[in-house]
Amino acid sequence: MLGVGQIDPAAPAVRADDLGFSRGDGCFEATRVVTSPDGQHRIDHLDEHFDRFDSSCAGLDLPPIDRPAWLELIGQLLAGWTLPGEAMLRMLLSRGREWDLPAGVTGVATLVPTSPETLRQRRDGVHAITLRRGFTADAFAEAHWLLGGVKTLSYAVNMAAIREAERRGADDVIFVSTDGVVLEAPTASVVWATDRTLRTTPVGPTGILPGTTQQLLFDRAAEAGWTTETGTARVDDLHAADTVWLISSVRGPVDVVELDGKGRSRDLPVLAEIARFAGFPPAAQ
Amino acid sequence: MLGVGQIDPAAPAVRADDLGFSRGDGCFEATRVVTSPDGQHRIDHLDEHFDRFDSSCAGLDLPPIDRPAWLELIGQLLAGWTLPGEAMLRMLLSRGREWDLPAGVTGVATLVPTSPETLRQRRDGVHAITLRRGFTADAFAEAHWLLGGVKTLSYAVNMAAIREAERRGADDVIFVSTDGVVLEAPTASVVWATDRTLRTTPVGPTGILPGTTQQLLFDRAAEAGWTTETGTARVDDLHAADTVWLISSVRGPVDVVELDGKGRSRDLPVLAEIARFAGFPPAAQ
Repeated sequence: MLGVGQIDPAAPAVRADDLGFSRGDGCFEATRVVTSPDGQHRIDHLDEHFDRFDSSCAGLDLPPIDRPAWLELIGQLLAGWTLPGEAMLRMLLSRGREWDLPAGVTGVATLVPTSPETLRQRRDGVHAITLRRGFTADAFAEAHWLLGGVKTLSYAVNMAAIREAERRGADDVIFVSTDGVVLEAPTASVVWATDRTLRTTPVGPTGILPGTTQQLLFDRAAEAGWTTETGTARVDDLHAADTVWLISSVRGPVDVVELDGKGRSRDLPVLAEIARFAGFPPAAQ
Repeated sequence: MLGVGQIDPAAPAVRADDLGFSRGDGCFEATRVVTSPDGQHRIDHLDEHFDRFDSSCAGLDLPPIDRPAWLELIGQLLAGWTLPGEAMLRMLLSRGREWDLPAGVTGVATLVPTSPETLRQRRDGVHAITLRRGFTADAFAEAHWLLGGVKTLSYAVNMAAIREAERRGADDVIFVSTDGVVLEAPTASVVWATDRTLRTTPVGPTGILPGTTQQLLFDRAAEAGWTTETGTARVDDLHAADTVWLISSVRGPVDVVELDGKGRSRDLPVLAEIARFAGFPPAAQ
């Protein structure tokens, strides 16, 4: 069942036997919605998110998403949304109910204002720590059941890692493989730059998620004359880089101002250029 | 919010912004309920499951469970249940709603008859395949954010592995570390026996779940004169063992009759003895 139209957030929406709830068995997408003062909405890169949603579904042996149904559901959600500024649109899809046959997927869309903390991180940057993810950097090669590159609803470890960062006085995490390769953040891609070359970790055997905003940024940066590369890095490479960003669709690019307790200088013109490529306001102003 | 009493399974129970649904951020327990023809219920080892539930909560930085509230919820559920025979009681606990403050955990209990497939596996045994889990056997040492030993709601990989087994014509999976150590099954402990020694994989650095029924079985087997040990094994050790079981609370001990395509002989008296220790009917009759 794909939504039932707009409901009171306080009202239950998902059945007790939904496999999204009991097993984290499903996938999701999140993107930014910008609402103008006159109530017009702009959804960021919905086609790209729909494409990745389909890719996640394929990884989970689920059928491709029903795009017209999602568009209708999102339209209903936006019709009731007039708050000017940024919001986060989340689209959640689960395998559906376990004990109701014929089973069908469950789809839920939610919309919430972008948090003040997100806006703060965009302005001030983030303090990040590195944490082991437990996998080797090639663990996902020929092991599709490990769901590499699938944006699943099973994010308990991602959330635990962020709590660990907060416990250590930081904001966020950069995951590292057991063999020392920089992977991704719990809810963001990692991008680093030296001179005018942008780099990020390759998808595939690393199991990391292909970043929609990272890809868009690389495309625009390449058009503007930057070199863009994928390649593996070690934490020392991040320390040596001019700039390190965590990049996601709702937060945009936020730069790492402290990594494992070591402060990093900020190159404001570069930050502004990268933010512009990604379609976000400049960092520190 | 811990339940609202008994509801129609077709009615929604969980909010759209519940972190159990959107992030798999929570934990669960499952155990067997046996209902006699006169409607009396016996819940298997509820205290042990409550203890492990608490341990999962601690791993997730959640407070201990509210046992009186759970007992009341389970009591309400059982009050409406008269079907004689076996059923599965599942207790699901999530971190609660994301955008509703003050946040509180969400608790849901469900009850469903034990599936015919479970009963068939108990009788006929299972065909299992081994699959890499992507982790080294010590990946969880000093990395509590990886949630080793926590029975989380983030089971998407476990479910994907079982689908992979089915795709290959098997019933279930035995996960193996990247360095070749036998870990656990997606929803069961792995136990193997040679002569009168029972063995299973150690918890801790391996990240596997401590099995309540496995522990109970080991306690009873030790009382009956078996030797019980924890120790790491390779897949070849399983092939060489007299008997291999997958052991879980609802399914009980089911013996592996084929492993990676190689048939295994069944020792019916031993199967019957182990099943009895674990509190289940004998396998093949």
